[in-house]
Parts: sequence; structure tokens; C-alpha cells
Amino acid sequence: MTLDHVSFADRFDGISGSAIREIFKMIAKPDMISFAGGNPSPSALPDALVDQFAHDVLSANGKQILQYGATEGYPPFLESLKAYAEEKTGARNLSILPVTGSTQAMDLLCKALINPGDVILVEDPTFLGNMQCMHLYQAQLVPVPSDENGLLLDALEDAMKTYHPKMLYIIPNFQNPTGKTLALERRKPVAMLAAQYGVVVAEDDPYRDLRYTGVPLPSIKSFDEEGWVVFLGSFSKVISPGMRVGFLAGDSSIIRKCTLGKQSTDLHTANLTQAIVDKFLREHILDQHIPEICKGYGAQLNAMLSDLVTFPEGTVYTRPEGGLFIWIELPEGIDTKELLPLAVERHVAYVPGTHFYARGGHHNTLRLNFSNSSIPQIHQGMDILREVFRNAIH
Amino acid sequence: MTLDHVSFADRFDGISGSAIREIFKMIAKPDMISFAGGNPSPSALPDALVDQFAHDVLSANGKQILQYGATEGYPPFLESLKAYAEEKTGARNLSILPVTGSTQAMDLLCKALINPGDVILVEDPTFLGNMQCMHLYQAQLVPVPSDENGLLLDALEDAMKTYHPKMLYIIPNFQNPTGKTLALERRKPVAMLAAQYGVVVAEDDPYRDLRYTGVPLPSIKSFDEEGWVVFLGSFSKVISPGMRVGFLAGDSSIIRKCTLGKQSTDLHTANLTQAIVDKFLREHILDQHIPEICKGYGAQLNAMLSDLVTFPEGTVYTRPEGGLFIWIELPEGIDTKELLPLAVERHVAYVPGTHFYARGGHHNTLRLNFSNSSIPQIHQGMDILREVFRNAIH
Repeated sequence: MTLDHVSFADRFDGISGSAIREIFKMIAKPDMISFAGGNPSPSALPDALVDQFAHDVLSANGKQILQYGATEGYPPFLESLKAYAEEKTGARNLSILPVTGSTQAMDLLCKALINPGDVILVEDPTFLGNMQCMHLYQAQLVPVPSDENGLLLDALEDAMKTYHPKMLYIIPNFQNPTGKTLALERRKPVAMLAAQYGVVVAEDDPYRDLRYTGVPLPSIKSFDEEGWVVFLGSFSKVISPGMRVGFLAGDSSIIRKCTLGKQSTDLHTANLTQAIVDKFLREHILDQHIPEICKGYGAQLNAMLSDLVTFPEGTVYTRPEGGLFIWIELPEGIDTKELLPLAVERHVAYVPGTHFYARGGHHNTLRLNFSNSSIPQIHQGMDILREVFRNAIH
Repeated sequence: MTLDHVSFADRFDGISGSAIREIFKMIAKPDMISFAGGNPSPSALPDALVDQFAHDVLSANGKQILQYGATEGYPPFLESLKAYAEEKTGARNLSILPVTGSTQAMDLLCKALINPGDVILVEDPTFLGNMQCMHLYQAQLVPVPSDENGLLLDALEDAMKTYHPKMLYIIPNFQNPTGKTLALERRKPVAMLAAQYGVVVAEDDPYRDLRYTGVPLPSIKSFDEEGWVVFLGSFSKVISPGMRVGFLAGDSSIIRKCTLGKQSTDLHTANLTQAIVDKFLREHILDQHIPEICKGYGAQLNAMLSDLVTFPEGTVYTRPEGGLFIWIELPEGIDTKELLPLAVERHVAYVPGTHFYARGGHHNTLRLNFSNSSIPQIHQGMDILREVFRNAIH
């Protein structure tokens, strides 16, 4: 029998792969100005420190690092990570699970909670990588509308009443893709609605430390009295995405289920990368490293915003206080997915906004990343995009 | 609403965690002689080389290693890994996917193929970690009997006819837990039966290189003409389990589905650990490293076998040509699970055999690991076990 006869699992019905991952391949050329992806700036990647710390931990503790580890995490890292997570979330008595990037955090949460057909409430638009994860667990995604201050509480409560969701997925700070931040006064109500209706909140917060203006807001988790909020943390934006280290923090019953799931998902996260991140925490490197990153990224954000002023009339865009992305709505009728090949031909890339909507549509939107391009590249790339979009109007 | 009201996914019904992982925690004491687990000997873990290679790759290529990578793998590693996988399997035109330990290989294969209720044929007994993975995908496990030369072909064909399985899971070399090896003359028939009945074979081969006597046998994959066999490779036993690097090798259609699954499972395996294993392959370190490991492990195996001669009358055990495990059947009536606490009290640990059976039972069996104990520890631990089991008879 030829392999054409193999039948794949139903969970892959309609899954064609992450649009961003496919765009990455299309634009893998050296002279491309990429506003796609969410890559940190090369200058923000601490390669010399990682080199030094890798040597430090391997020479001090190499045999333990190379041996099998516990699914629950590399013991020294668990200690430093607990303190770090409590500081970030402002919550206490957290159970913590180090994971292989916060991508795995989402996978394990879905594994723990989602049966086929279960409803997950998502922002509209939201991070497409995690939507693919939810689709692979055959969840039903129900988008909840936002305004400039994030999720609308009335709409959220209506959706909880109507759909009896298992989970709410939310990125409260500098959301991907919009750059929006959930307002302070909406944070406690989100936690309270979750407890009222028995909905697990996946609070995904990879961008928290990349704040360029304004003041940090308390996490949703900090308002969580019953344990329904699970915090998804990442070191991808403040140390390195290539090391794949993130964490889950929440109530012990949910974390325990995720730990059981992780036993047969990858057994444990590599000890070496956990040990390196542990060194960053113990030596308080992020205290200096993050302000340095933010200085650069803030200037890049402002450069891109200044270019947007001259975009075609009717263009609307967010003015994020942090994070990696600006969200743009062009005048109706412009189809950013159709125009992407024209932009790529001229060596500029972005992600069409339609991919971030659970129900598609919104063809006049796009997401721009500013962290991975220099200021001259930003001006050059934005000049080209402006022209591509102007030409599409006339 | 308190969190007691959370309902976890159905896939966790009946899942209480890997028995081995739980035993690990029970025996985490410094003076324990552990014949449980499958840990490499500390002396087999090349910490100095990993330290040097980490520095080599980070100083040469640190920015790329710290940045996001492709789900498909770190490009230099993909190149060296392809050559390595073709040499190991004796197969050509393989699609390859580096994964976060071969634990993830199994998770991705199940994600790609298994709907709830699908049948997976397994050896009887088989590796319990991967049984947990299959249970989490709600597969129905059907055990197929073996003799001393591995799976019985008639029984295998009967099971394929009767159950229309989606997959056969098999460890052909120095099987976990029995140490048995699938005879040469059964390998081509397994590949042919798979193609005849349209069954994907997951050929899990982590122990291949740990051969102490006899000659290496061709892989099942080498006899695969239609692409139904997927090879699961691991560097855990020949470099380091703590680095979590393994691979899938097979037909492009199956590997592509696994790659899509991996996008939302952990995005990609850490670039740093992939780059370090790449150095091991490029510098042909394993050519010298593996014979050194085998010399030590072969002596440890023989020490343990020599102790078994004096075990209670009626004890039967395998005499593996390689791998990490000996499988023991004690006289009927002895319950190794009941006796484990007595052994642990005397600082010796093993894994009761019942955990490795898809349908339980077989309470008089146990698995012993010899790689993680010195020869004096082996003699000391085996003296204690002999006494514990003798006392249980009288």
C-alpha cells in the first residue's frame, strides 16, 4: 500500500501551518527589511554573556546539566524563577513550571484543559501562533471585541454567559498583534469574571518588560483570588528566543496537570538553557539589560510612528507604549495579503492582518514589527510600503 | 467559583503520571543504588567537550543561535544530521526533523496520526513513558506477544488484520524494558506487513550504538519501500539526555505533518543544543566516544548478569547484547511492586515490571538498569535485592 493511504489525525483538518512561519521562509534573503516576525534586534541578543554563563554552569555543574533532569525543572532555576515570577506577577504562592518557550506553555495548557469543541475566548485579533495551537486541540475560538483599552468587559461577560468557555486567552500588555494594553481598571474585573463563570485565564505576557513610556500595570494574576488565572512567561524577548525558555505560573492543580502533560511532551526542558537563564536571574543581569534594549526599541518605535503620519489618508494605527508591534488599518479596499508579494519584491515584508483574526476578514489591516530593523532600515522600508499602498489606491 | 470546579481534558482520565518519574522522586537520595531509570553513567557524559563546543558555537555564531530558528531545524545541524541518520538507518532520501528529545518525536507522531480510539500495537511489555504519551492521545493500546527474538510475526499480522491499527510502536534493538533485539529475519517482514496493512511503524532506536557483543543489524527502516516506517533517533544515550536533542526521519509527508505540529508545540528545539550536537557529528567525536562508553557498560552488564546466577531458583532473565536494561521474571507469587519499598529502605531501587505492560499484571517481573551504577555498587545492590526477594519466598 502506498503512503498516499495514510490518514492523518482529524486535528489537522484545515491546518496549513503558521502564516508567519511561511512568510519567514519567503523572506529569508540577506537584504530583506523585515517588519514581519517578532524577532529581537541582534544587538539585543547577549551572546557574549550566554557564552560566559554556558561555560560557568558547565564547568561548575556539567554532569548534572548533561544528565536527565526533573520534568518539574532544573532545581537552581526553579528557585530563582519563583522569585522572578512572583515579582513579575505580584502574586504569591505560585506553582511554577519551566517550559520549552512559552509556545509550550500554551500547548500544555490546552493539553490539560481542552476537549474537542470546547470554547476558547480570544481577543480579536490575536496571536496567530497560539490560535494554531488551539485549533490543533480542536477548540472552538470565539473572538471578543476590544476598544483602544483592550477587551470590552460587557462583551466578555456576554461571551462567558453565552458560550460557557473553558478558557480566555489574553495578552494584556502591548498585545500581539495590536500593541494595545488592557487598561488598569479592566484587570481586576477580568479576574473576577473568570472566577464567577469558572473560566481559566491564560495571561500571556511576553512583552511586559518592553515598556518605553508610561508605568507598568499589575498583572491580571495579581487580582486572582481563586486560582483561575495562569500566567505564561517568556525569556524570548529579554534574553533569547533561540534558547526556548519560558514558564507557567499558577495554581498547583493546573500546573500539576501541565507537568503530567510535559512528561510525555519533551520530558523536561534542556537543563543547559535553564541553567543559563538561571545565571541571568541570579546575577541580576536583566536590571541593566532591559533598559538598554528598551532605549533602542523605543527609538525604533518612534521612527516607525513618524513615518506612518505620511501614509495614505484614512490610515489608522495604534501608538503602543511598548512591545514589538504597531497595528495598522489602511483605507477600506486595500488588501494587504494581495500586496505582500509586491512589497517582498521590493525587499520589504510585513504580516497581513487577516491572519490574526479567528474568523478572517479585515483585509485592509497589517502588523508591523520595529525591533528587528535599524532606524535607517525603518525609514527605507516604510517609504516603500507607503508607495505600495498608495499605488493600490490609485 | 473555587478552582475545584475546573474540569480537565478527558485525555487525562486515568493518567496518574509516569511511574518511573515518580520512583525517581522517591529515590532522590545521595546514597541510593539506583537500578531504576535509564540514566547514562556520569562518566559517559562528555561535560568538558560540551563546555568547549558551547563556547565554539556561541563565539562563532552566537547571534544566530540566540535568535528565533526554523521549526525545521538549525541549518548546519540539519546537514550533519541527515548524513548521520542515513548512516544509522541505512535508508536514503530521508526527511529529517530535529526534536526536543525523542520523547517529542513520539508526541509529534501521535499528534500527526492518532484520533481518540485509534489502535496502536505495542510490544508486551514496552517503554512506559511512550505508553503515557499514547494514552494522552486516547489511543487504544493492543499488545503483541514476543519470544526471545522479538515480536512474533504471526501474532503481528493477526493483530493488524483484527484491529486495523494506525501505528506499530517498536524498539528493535535492546528493547526497553526487556533488552531483547528483533531478529534480522523478522525485520523485513515487519516493514512489509506495515505496507501491506497500511500501518505506520514508529521504529524507536535510542540504544542502537550501545552494543557490547554481536553485530549491528539493519534497521526496519532500511527495508521500507513505501515510506510507512518512521525512525525515532536520540542523542540521549550517546551524548547527553539533559540536552534534549533527538530526531525524526522518514517520508516527507509524515515529517511535514510533525513539523506543523511542532510549530505550536515548542516552535523549534533550542538552537544551542542543536549546534552542540552538530559539533559532535562534524568532529566525528562519537567514533571514539561510543566505544569508550560501551566498554564500561559491557563490564557493568556482565557484573549484573553474574550476580543473577545466584538469584532464587526459578528466576529467568534476559542476556542482552547491548542497551541499558536486564529484564527479570522472579518465581510466581513474588510481587515486585509490593517489595519495592523494602528495597528502597535498604537503598536499592528498580522499576516493577507491571508498569511496562499495557494491560498490567506480571507482578513477578522487574527491570534493572546497569549503566548508572559502578561495578561495586552493582554487586552490593544485587546482594540486597537477592535477599529481599529470597525473604519474600520464605
